[in-house]
Amino acid sequence: MTGAWKKPDWGRVLPILDWGSRYDRTDLTGDITAAVIVTIMLIPQSLAYALLAGLPAEVGLYASILPLVFYAVFGTSRVLAVGPVAVVSLMTASALAPLGLTSVTEYIAAAGMLALLSGLMLLGMGVLRLGVIANFLSHPVIAGFITASGLLIALSQVKHLIGIEAHGHNLPELLWSMASHLNQINLFTLMVGAVALAMLYWIRTSLSPFLQTRFGVSANAAGTAARVGPVFAVIGTALVSWLLDLPSLGVAVVGDVPAGLPPLGLPTGVWDRIPDLLLPAALISIIGYVESVSVAQTLASKKRQKIDANQELVALGASNLSAGLSGGYPVTGGFARSVVNFDAGARTPAAGAFTAIGLLFAAMYLTPLLYFLPKATLAATIVIAVLSLVDLRVLSHAWGYSKADFAAVATTVSLTLAFGVEIGVAAGVLVSLFLFVRKTSRPHVAEVGLVPGTQHFRNILRHKVVTDPTVLTLRIDESLYFANARRMEDMILARVLKDKDSLKHVILMCSAVNEIDLSALESLETINHRLENMDVTLHLSEVKGPVMDRLKRSAFLEEITGQVFLSQFDAFHSLRENPEPSSGEAA
Amino acid sequence: MTGAWKKPDWGRVLPILDWGSRYDRTDLTGDITAAVIVTIMLIPQSLAYALLAGLPAEVGLYASILPLVFYAVFGTSRVLAVGPVAVVSLMTASALAPLGLTSVTEYIAAAGMLALLSGLMLLGMGVLRLGVIANFLSHPVIAGFITASGLLIALSQVKHLIGIEAHGHNLPELLWSMASHLNQINLFTLMVGAVALAMLYWIRTSLSPFLQTRFGVSANAAGTAARVGPVFAVIGTALVSWLLDLPSLGVAVVGDVPAGLPPLGLPTGVWDRIPDLLLPAALISIIGYVESVSVAQTLASKKRQKIDANQELVALGASNLSAGLSGGYPVTGGFARSVVNFDAGARTPAAGAFTAIGLLFAAMYLTPLLYFLPKATLAATIVIAVLSLVDLRVLSHAWGYSKADFAAVATTVSLTLAFGVEIGVAAGVLVSLFLFVRKTSRPHVAEVGLVPGTQHFRNILRHKVVTDPTVLTLRIDESLYFANARRMEDMILARVLKDKDSLKHVILMCSAVNEIDLSALESLETINHRLENMDVTLHLSEVKGPVMDRLKRSAFLEEITGQVFLSQFDAFHSLRENPEPSSGEAA
Repeated sequence: MTGAWKKPDWGRVLPILDWGSRYDRTDLTGDITAAVIVTIMLIPQSLAYALLAGLPAEVGLYASILPLVFYAVFGTSRVLAVGPVAVVSLMTASALAPLGLTSVTEYIAAAGMLALLSGLMLLGMGVLRLGVIANFLSHPVIAGFITASGLLIALSQVKHLIGIEAHGHNLPELLWSMASHLNQINLFTLMVGAVALAMLYWIRTSLSPFLQTRFGVSANAAGTAARVGPVFAVIGTALVSWLLDLPSLGVAVVGDVPAGLPPLGLPTGVWDRIPDLLLPAALISIIGYVESVSVAQTLASKKRQKIDANQELVALGASNLSAGLSGGYPVTGGFARSVVNFDAGARTPAAGAFTAIGLLFAAMYLTPLLYFLPKATLAATIVIAVLSLVDLRVLSHAWGYSKADFAAVATTVSLTLAFGVEIGVAAGVLVSLFLFVRKTSRPHVAEVGLVPGTQHFRNILRHKVVTDPTVLTLRIDESLYFANARRMEDMILARVLKDKDSLKHVILMCSAVNEIDLSALESLETINHRLENMDVTLHLSEVKGPVMDRLKRSAFLEEITGQVFLSQFDAFHSLRENPEPSSGEAA
Repeated sequence: MTGAWKKPDWGRVLPILDWGSRYDRTDLTGDITAAVIVTIMLIPQSLAYALLAGLPAEVGLYASILPLVFYAVFGTSRVLAVGPVAVVSLMTASALAPLGLTSVTEYIAAAGMLALLSGLMLLGMGVLRLGVIANFLSHPVIAGFITASGLLIALSQVKHLIGIEAHGHNLPELLWSMASHLNQINLFTLMVGAVALAMLYWIRTSLSPFLQTRFGVSANAAGTAARVGPVFAVIGTALVSWLLDLPSLGVAVVGDVPAGLPPLGLPTGVWDRIPDLLLPAALISIIGYVESVSVAQTLASKKRQKIDANQELVALGASNLSAGLSGGYPVTGGFARSVVNFDAGARTPAAGAFTAIGLLFAAMYLTPLLYFLPKATLAATIVIAVLSLVDLRVLSHAWGYSKADFAAVATTVSLTLAFGVEIGVAAGVLVSLFLFVRKTSRPHVAEVGLVPGTQHFRNILRHKVVTDPTVLTLRIDESLYFANARRMEDMILARVLKDKDSLKHVILMCSAVNEIDLSALESLETINHRLENMDVTLHLSEVKGPVMDRLKRSAFLEEITGQVFLSQFDAFHSLRENPEPSSGEAA
């Protein structure tokens, strides 16, 4: 590579060049079919999520158009569908609430700015190839966060289902606010809400088996019907609302939705709010990215395709940037819509572009039809969608496996519920890291002996092994670094003191030591020195290559009173005083 | 122990009961001799450090009396001398400056409050047995912090040495402030400063060899003379100052110092400042504790005595509490004074109590003699004392050993100089932790083979080893947890894909895996599943006891397509297709 310019890999930077060049008629058919189905599903969902974010319904449509196109150009997943999703909508609401914006125009502009900032951050992270930071969100933390967010989202929709006011971005606020407005309950809204909820629940759980058993519809077609089914609940309740003039009975409806193209341009009037939006934008970026990448990876593995984590940052960055510039709000790859896209036979990201055309059509011509659509119907759509996110079993699963994992999940769930999404997820990450560091700072040290008939050494407390009273072997089960160096020093010296009359050699078996930092090196020097004072020789065994390279740069290998053995067996074999061949170790 | 009350171990809670019961005449002689020498040394030092903290000189004396007594009662070191020290004095100045206190009385009260808070925190940490948190300050971070603080302290004294005003708690502030007041230089002050500096430097470096070679004084006595020598510089310059009436020539002197007992009681008038003092108090507590414990441990190991880290927290807590209640300011165990105490033959903490009596006498009767003492002399005392703290070799030492350690030291040194002590030390700890986590998130994975003639497996790139084309063994050199699980998954699958035609078995050698958390378990399940799709069997070997216990609680051991082998040799031996006995491994 030296001296030559590396030819840019355009297929990597613009995945569209890769699949686009091989696009054929089969791809087109699959993509168009999927696009029609996804479009029908996305219309009510986009409106509903905009409502969840506290935004006018059309913003949800706008956020579903350009982002899909940009993802199609830059994304590496063949089937990921980008747009408004539940958790990010909740995070948007939670980010904008403290700004105290009074006009809707300002609120929309702030949401756009949030998407813009999030897009820039994602692009920056992509350029810097920081996809790896998503790894710091552990699976249990993500699961806990999604579950708690799902609960918060469902609860936040209750107000629309029963026709009261309520505000708040965490459990106590929401419950308190709801309790104090209970007297506002509107019976007609409650009825619409209950019917919509029941219909949607039935469509989700029973429509597909019903069609299959009653009408012999194929499993695939029945599944698709169940996915587009919610649109009938939307049409049905909107129709009833129009026929009975429900708005006059106090039922909240979507009302006037401007028809037309999404507005293009920078969000205006909220530039001074950028400092307040930076932290929420960062959290939305990371959570959105993690959610999106896991969906993309799950679906890609089913078809043995590959996701490029860093390119996904670029693609989501471009999508959010476009959302911010076209009257939308933060978007990411959604699970439900991507699964539908996948199941409906989407073959390339062009399906996303076709979906965008469908939604553009909806934004231009269908919005007048939404006037009488009850907000309760949209709320029911959200509740049914997010209840599948809620899975409290992650708590018992983590409890059964490890208390540290449980602590991380429990912290994430409880803090998300108690203080909202931002504090919840930040605390989850910090608690996970803290527990990891705490664990490594309290290392396990095993006294080991030779497993008879082998050259293998194991814990004397767990296995029947051969030992020698003059030789103590301690296997150190942790990298040695500043947080555990002093403790290790104390543990080793305390153990040696117990047998200091018989002991002649101490071997530290380093098979599990992946690093020795400068603090730990000083501790090793201290141990060597103290043992020397007790006439005990210090040896090391099974020091790994990278660790040995490091030690060679220090004076320790000259100072150590004993030797560094390649294998623990070599060490034990040459140091023990009574090598009884009868004990049965390998010759 | 069950069902019975554990009798309290009073000797542990009050170490004085332990050594006090065996106190004899030899102890008394040693302790009194040491106390006289330490007292003479501490009088100028206490005054100087008070000056460094921005406090009146007598506060330094007060802070050296009761804390010594309380440490004698609670401390576990036989020779640690507690009182004002350079770094903590600098931190005190840095904590009090932003409060904008205008009257000296308030400033003194705030310093007392800082000691009180620090005492309570240390006591609390002692009761909760949190001595372990000191381990999170790595050796290089401490060394870098002490060096940078030493530089800041020396620089902060230049103003007294040349008679100008200057303020600031970091390098840029100090340099700028000094540069803009250079026109104030007082020639007489400059002369006193230069003479005092030269005298003190000569006493420190040359007095002992001079006495030994010229007058045949014993090394021990000459060393003691060098330690108490600074008092002659103090007496000399004070005498000159009085004879020539230097104050009338613009030379700043200590002036009126109230004679009498330290004022007892709670600091008053600064209770509303407690919130501002909490963070500085916490940092002072931790830094002071770490400094003190390392001094105590260094000296204890010379006499094979033991320091109890948690009891030291209690002892320092009590000392600081007493400092706060007797007109002092935050104190800790100092290196110089403890070494002098040790060298002068102190045998028990009673030496500290006798020193306290000496300093009480000084506070009551000697303060009038200090009127004419030039502040430049005290500044010279500080400069000479702290220059021994400055050791920039820690930077090159760390650079030679590891870039991560170097990054931690360099961050600590540069941020301490640039932004002051608080930011410097906090950044050092965070950078160390960040680098550790970053390293563990990018694990080393080695492909290993059998070292001929042994049952030992090593990296194929570093050793001449036997391998088999159908069996791939990967040694994972890190605990598996959320931050590296996904990356490990990618690395393993990428490696397997390279040889997927010939491979039948993959063995993950887990000798260095000290933990598998829930995220990593999910990654292992994914790897198992993907390999199964490629008709490759997954095996584990050398899984440690604690990790195995955890895996047994999951379903993974039932799902895994292969086996878990006790040793890597067992695994390789039973899976390879062409076990050629000629290849030379152990039978």
